[in-house]
Amino acid sequence: MVKIGILGVGTVGASVANILEENADIIEARAGKKIVVKSGVVKNLSKERGVSIKLSEDPLDVVNDPEIDIVVELMGGIEEPYALVKKALENGKAVVTANKALLAYHRYELQEIAGDLPLMYEASTAGGIPIIGALRNGLSANHINSIQGIMNGTCNYMLTKMINEGAQYDEILKEAQELGYAEADPTFDVGGFDASHKLLILASIAYGIDAKPEDILIEGIENITQADVAFAKDFGYAIKLLGIAKKVGEAVELRVHATMIPEESMIAKVDGVMNAVTVVGDRVGETLYYGPGAGGDATASAVIADIVDIVRGNQGPMLGYKKGLESGLRLLPKEEICSHYYLRMSVDDKKGVLATVTQLFSELDISIEGMMQNPDNDHDERVELLFITHECQEKMIQEAMQALEKLDVINGKVAMIRIEK
Amino acid sequence: MVKIGILGVGTVGASVANILEENADIIEARAGKKIVVKSGVVKNLSKERGVSIKLSEDPLDVVNDPEIDIVVELMGGIEEPYALVKKALENGKAVVTANKALLAYHRYELQEIAGDLPLMYEASTAGGIPIIGALRNGLSANHINSIQGIMNGTCNYMLTKMINEGAQYDEILKEAQELGYAEADPTFDVGGFDASHKLLILASIAYGIDAKPEDILIEGIENITQADVAFAKDFGYAIKLLGIAKKVGEAVELRVHATMIPEESMIAKVDGVMNAVTVVGDRVGETLYYGPGAGGDATASAVIADIVDIVRGNQGPMLGYKKGLESGLRLLPKEEICSHYYLRMSVDDKKGVLATVTQLFSELDISIEGMMQNPDNDHDERVELLFITHECQEKMIQEAMQALEKLDVINGKVAMIRIEK
Repeated sequence: MVKIGILGVGTVGASVANILEENADIIEARAGKKIVVKSGVVKNLSKERGVSIKLSEDPLDVVNDPEIDIVVELMGGIEEPYALVKKALENGKAVVTANKALLAYHRYELQEIAGDLPLMYEASTAGGIPIIGALRNGLSANHINSIQGIMNGTCNYMLTKMINEGAQYDEILKEAQELGYAEADPTFDVGGFDASHKLLILASIAYGIDAKPEDILIEGIENITQADVAFAKDFGYAIKLLGIAKKVGEAVELRVHATMIPEESMIAKVDGVMNAVTVVGDRVGETLYYGPGAGGDATASAVIADIVDIVRGNQGPMLGYKKGLESGLRLLPKEEICSHYYLRMSVDDKKGVLATVTQLFSELDISIEGMMQNPDNDHDERVELLFITHECQEKMIQEAMQALEKLDVINGKVAMIRIEK
Repeated sequence: MVKIGILGVGTVGASVANILEENADIIEARAGKKIVVKSGVVKNLSKERGVSIKLSEDPLDVVNDPEIDIVVELMGGIEEPYALVKKALENGKAVVTANKALLAYHRYELQEIAGDLPLMYEASTAGGIPIIGALRNGLSANHINSIQGIMNGTCNYMLTKMINEGAQYDEILKEAQELGYAEADPTFDVGGFDASHKLLILASIAYGIDAKPEDILIEGIENITQADVAFAKDFGYAIKLLGIAKKVGEAVELRVHATMIPEESMIAKVDGVMNAVTVVGDRVGETLYYGPGAGGDATASAVIADIVDIVRGNQGPMLGYKKGLESGLRLLPKEEICSHYYLRMSVDDKKGVLATVTQLFSELDISIEGMMQNPDNDHDERVELLFITHECQEKMIQEAMQALEKLDVINGKVAMIRIEK
């Protein structure tokens, strides 16, 4: 019999306990042993959790319990769970965590501390989709060319509504909050930070690259408007918040931002709260993994898969390698990222403005692939100019945007969305 | 250092040897050990293979070589590889196979023979997609509600062309043969037999169900016409050759056939030679896995993933469990399968025919959900009747089709396609 202790018995923790009980027959058949939850830890014992396991308020009751074989960390936060996971490993316990923030900041230290002890984290990225297993085990023959992931259900829900139903950003955010898909302070989701944690985890497995959220380009979906959506549709693109990791020569790009992608690509077809990750390997080509990115039972499904793997005796180092992987690779500085760009700006509707703008692009060596002019519905005397550029460097676009915003004929901010072809 | 012997150095075998050499850096980092191919076996030594490994014509040179740790079986066929894999296991070697036919007939004996030795087969099903790992490991917390797979690239290529370009079956088969996507005798692919082998493998992992191809319903795409495609489009369906496994009470349905599926479902969007498998678990909900189902490098990617897993020390029983899994489940007899059906028939264009046909449905308790009447372009004096039924049993539809074909007013065969809603 294998005994589990759960740190953090919230929605996911309760699902883990309940599924281990309700699906015990099939889980035991697959794991080869009976798996039971011995105890759990919560912040507040007086709250009803809907589980029949023994609860305490002291994490050390689990972490130091000699009877517990596997500690499941579902408490959230960074430094507190880091200390507890470390302690559990030092006590010789295997650990399963769903904590993406913990891994975004401490995955390399944890791999070091874990050594030969299993430390698994399938549930940390894209919820119920077994993407960690696919990338770590299923694609191990490949140098990874690129990863593109829809890894935040809140953003994908909102963008889907904006694209399919013409909803405005503010109204759809409010709806998402009412449905419980978005937090009262939605920044962590709509600002791209949640997706960045998951991207960093995948990038470690694929490239062995060490980076923290503050090292990489992270933008959210807050500035997307119906004008952008309409333009994207006209040009055959969907808009998705993507986490992108890409090998470019001896460097790796890591970035999270709203992205225009061809609407016929598989990942563009992923709607609503669903997640999906596309991985292109140098030998296998493109593979895609789709499923629910959140929810108690879906996330618990991934947590339990890790538990079963540990009980079966499977191992392999946490990030998929012990020594450096593609160790020559460096993180590409944000400014050196190359992309196609979409730019939208509101300009005074008078002679010579387009010439002024295109002259500025020309001086910065930014080549324009396409251009459209729309009425500015809010201002009679203005028009909106929309551009798609050929590939150019991030720093040139940033420079162009700053220069454009200084021009008298340009009103307000220049909106920008990167394009993946 | 781990030494590999390859039985069958054709396209996939050559890819395995070449990738192990060309991606040796990253594969060694991931596996933790150097992996080298010691030797390979071919039927005909005089043919150029494009590999630098030592070749022989006698499989026993590999299977009995005490230096070889892992035997990779890529020779095809059933009884010959069965004897060789058995021998390799008896010699204490781990085995990796891509041979779906071998597994469709001998997977349970092989699991028994393998015991604690690894016998892995990621490449047997859906090529480069790591679906075996996903189902065996990633979804182990779940009772599996259903599996639906596009697992034959030839059929999907042909159906995609018929749907998107209005191509006729015969012309597109010829084109697929010229492109090398279809064999000179295409029956194994277009008849659904290839997909059935893969379905049986997945169904064993999901349900522990034991069945052979001859036990289950297998139909191909040979009778699909442009009339069916046009009807499907009008009603919002795509047509795909699906392998379907579904839990219905205490039984499991297993079937392969052309299927109308809602065109907005993710799997309906899988075009061309690509494969995809949707798995619905009772806890995780729907997950989907997409990628290349064939090709030397893509298939070799899966073979090498298994090799790396073995070298890492991962194991777990071949089919994912040692004792019976959901052992109460029985195979649902074909006749008891329930589905919605689409029926198309060419009838004489005269009064009372529709009444005759609907009367017959009524007598068999088949309830009609929708009906259309089209001109029969080949015969002025006939029309085509197209029906969609409510859910009914397979045996009633078969009876109805036989009875309809006996009617004087019905010309030729009644075409039928099952519908998954």
